Amino acid sequence: MEKLKVIKIGGNVIDNPAKLEAFLASFATMKGHRILVHGGGAVASRTLQAMGIAPKMIEGRRVTDADTLQVVTAVYAGLINKTIVATLQKYGCNAAGLSGADCNAIVSAKRAATPIDYGFVGDVKSVNARAFSMFLDNGITPVVCAINHDGCGTLLNTNADTVASSIATAMGNRYDTELVLCFEKDGVLLDKDDASSVIPEIDSALFAKLKAEGRISEGMLPKLKNAFDAIAGGVSKVTVKNSDNLTDDTGTTIR
Amino acid sequence: MEKLKVIKIGGNVIDNPAKLEAFLASFATMKGHRILVHGGGAVASRTLQAMGIAPKMIEGRRVTDADTLQVVTAVYAGLINKTIVATLQKYGCNAAGLSGADCNAIVSAKRAATPIDYGFVGDVKSVNARAFSMFLDNGITPVVCAINHDGCGTLLNTNADTVASSIATAMGNRYDTELVLCFEKDGVLLDKDDASSVIPEIDSALFAKLKAEGRISEGMLPKLKNAFDAIAGGVSKVTVKNSDNLTDDTGTTIR
Repeated sequence: MEKLKVIKIGGNVIDNPAKLEAFLASFATMKGHRILVHGGGAVASRTLQAMGIAPKMIEGRRVTDADTLQVVTAVYAGLINKTIVATLQKYGCNAAGLSGADCNAIVSAKRAATPIDYGFVGDVKSVNARAFSMFLDNGITPVVCAINHDGCGTLLNTNADTVASSIATAMGNRYDTELVLCFEKDGVLLDKDDASSVIPEIDSALFAKLKAEGRISEGMLPKLKNAFDAIAGGVSKVTVKNSDNLTDDTGTTIR
Repeated sequence: MEKLKVIKIGGNVIDNPAKLEAFLASFATMKGHRILVHGGGAVASRTLQAMGIAPKMIEGRRVTDADTLQVVTAVYAGLINKTIVATLQKYGCNAAGLSGADCNAIVSAKRAATPIDYGFVGDVKSVNARAFSMFLDNGITPVVCAINHDGCGTLLNTNADTVASSIATAMGNRYDTELVLCFEKDGVLLDKDDASSVIPEIDSALFAKLKAEGRISEGMLPKLKNAFDAIAGGVSKVTVKNSDNLTDDTGTTIR
């Protein structure tokens, strides 16, 4: 099977134009099939603020009401996505930006309104592997934002880690697939206050042990859950690493 | 040769949610290959206003400065484009939204800064017919916004009529191509104050005569210039018609 890397970046890269440019230059030099998934970053929050739309938060999580959905669709699928695509084209990487609605690539289901109504937030229901393969077979690199649709005309805001993990899983029986989750740290840390305490490799036994000992930071738990879901779904390997070190073999490997 | 329709819609449809929904429902029922090109409408102006970015106009035309480019990229390539794509998916038309940067579909050159600097505004330089064919060959309908790129990392705002005309021309040697320019009137009018005075067919001799007599309205002149450019470039037929009458044979035909 041919190899495929599904690489996810978040706010630490997207919110920093110099870092984003350096990341994309590095991404463009990579060989082989790859899919880039990006989160939203702080631009949407700043835009909502500039437009005088007050953020609604419940238990620390943003509620995506109709106005907010319009802004995040504009910012994620438009501004950020096309900025990334145009930059990749500059570096010779033929990219195509996609929301889940494009080519019916990703269908999500609106999250139930009880117990908490988060508004236009979706959970991934299905990934159209054939659509992604069309681009890869034609030498085009998909760049995917975390806006997808329900198939009935409604766009939905979705967690970007989950989008990346779902794409990697869906591609797992067509390609030897690796999922790479980039963030601001060098990997999963044994001691969250010691940046050098990167754990080189985690299996489910070690994960259970570290979790029981309370050594995994709260932000890392859903990331690792996504990683193990991907492994269980047929992805060969998941790497959690610093976005600055895209092309080297640092980070934490989950198998 | 297989047939292809390149259909352009503007503000009169995009700014009216009910009209847009009806148009897209009608578009989805059409048979055969087609490409939809959409302009921007008033949403971008409203967003700029909401964000407190003052419109800069020179001789009645908008100057696209860096802030304005960010907003039009967000609104055209994100909000409007994905709303259209998600709605087409609902009606069973498998669509994919594209800016010119995606798949390197359309490269524009930034307009010269003299005599008037309109900022990040581009004129179409080349259309990648192979990229559009990839979608059509896979049964996917491209939905194109008028944001494209210069190939060097800069996005550029471009006239949507010109984008539609350029795509139709580029596809002309692969498909028997028709360009359909939709707007709020029933066609080119012999008397601009009489909505029923539609001219059924115009050739270049009649166009020259009507122009000399001052009977073509100012807004219609660039539209007709685009139409004749397309015919000269190998497009079989151009139709100027009301967006409400997409699937019937009303309107003005230019040959």
